Amino acid sequence: MEFTEVIRKRESVRDFEDRPVPENILKMVLEAARLAPSASNRQPWKFIVVRDALKRQELARSAGGQHHIAEAPVVIAAVALMPEYLMSNGVPSYPIDIGIAVDHMALAAADQGLGTCWIGTFDQQEVRKILGVPSAYRVVILLPLGFPRSGHGPKSRKSLNQIVCYETFKDDLDLTIPSGF
Amino acid sequence: MEFTEVIRKRESVRDFEDRPVPENILKMVLEAARLAPSASNRQPWKFIVVRDALKRQELARSAGGQHHIAEAPVVIAAVALMPEYLMSNGVPSYPIDIGIAVDHMALAAADQGLGTCWIGTFDQQEVRKILGVPSAYRVVILLPLGFPRSGHGPKSRKSLNQIVCYETFKDDLDLTIPSGF
Repeated sequence: MEFTEVIRKRESVRDFEDRPVPENILKMVLEAARLAPSASNRQPWKFIVVRDALKRQELARSAGGQHHIAEAPVVIAAVALMPEYLMSNGVPSYPIDIGIAVDHMALAAADQGLGTCWIGTFDQQEVRKILGVPSAYRVVILLPLGFPRSGHGPKSRKSLNQIVCYETFKDDLDLTIPSGF
Repeated sequence: MEFTEVIRKRESVRDFEDRPVPENILKMVLEAARLAPSASNRQPWKFIVVRDALKRQELARSAGGQHHIAEAPVVIAAVALMPEYLMSNGVPSYPIDIGIAVDHMALAAADQGLGTCWIGTFDQQEVRKILGVPSAYRVVILLPLGFPRSGHGPKSRKSLNQIVCYETFKDDLDLTIPSGF
């Protein structure tokens, strides 16, 4: 699919069809993560592919009962291997690295007609235990993946005027959150 | 361009041609950021488009003399407006939100034949001062943008076997950083 169409089509999906993700599509999604850039090209990540139904139910419970985690045929857990590193600007690099890699996967999934949903609302300790992740590492995002049963339609977003300024910062003081997404 | 080609072609560019970025292409790049997802759809970001040559030189100095910041015709500074928010998994959401939006821009730029480079190595206070960013906000990434003078060729990345595991975490203990990127 054309890149601009992928960007327009990607949306958060919380309602999945009950059919598996073909192996070749899963591989394309993971390959997109593999090619993602990271700070100093460290690639400080692991992606755990969870298909086991019981494990997905446990993950859903650890995420406050978000049922789409159990219903999606695949959940990818993105794990940061170097969660302590700060860039010189004072910002931790691991959420950016993982954010880029997961964004690549979410877009690659949309390119293949699949839906995803970014999930950061879960109990870190419980998810680590379910997936056997050592405490030195951090689970950053759970990404359910599957064929969407339904879509949302147009995105609710701020306008370019509200988010872009030129040469210097300009605060339009409009921090209203658009309804829905 | 096809999505998979964009993912393959995007690379870090540090050598830019001395010609401006057409307004319509800059707008497409910013539009890709506008459509990016964010935690609870808060869109907690501002993107400062810097074209002023003196400002770009100042930014380059604040980033340890990275000359491509001054040489690129455009630098986009991505600013987090809510840098304090932690997700329930203990991970700050702002670097993920900004990471996704900047990834959309870097990919949209590649789609249009432009090059970018993620820069997180800079003095936060100095950059805030140069761009007039209030101290409550945080500059997360500087993204030089322009026509690339030269490319790197094939990416140096770990293999899928090294970064993917199934059902539970598996540490292959291979944290070797491939040379180059």
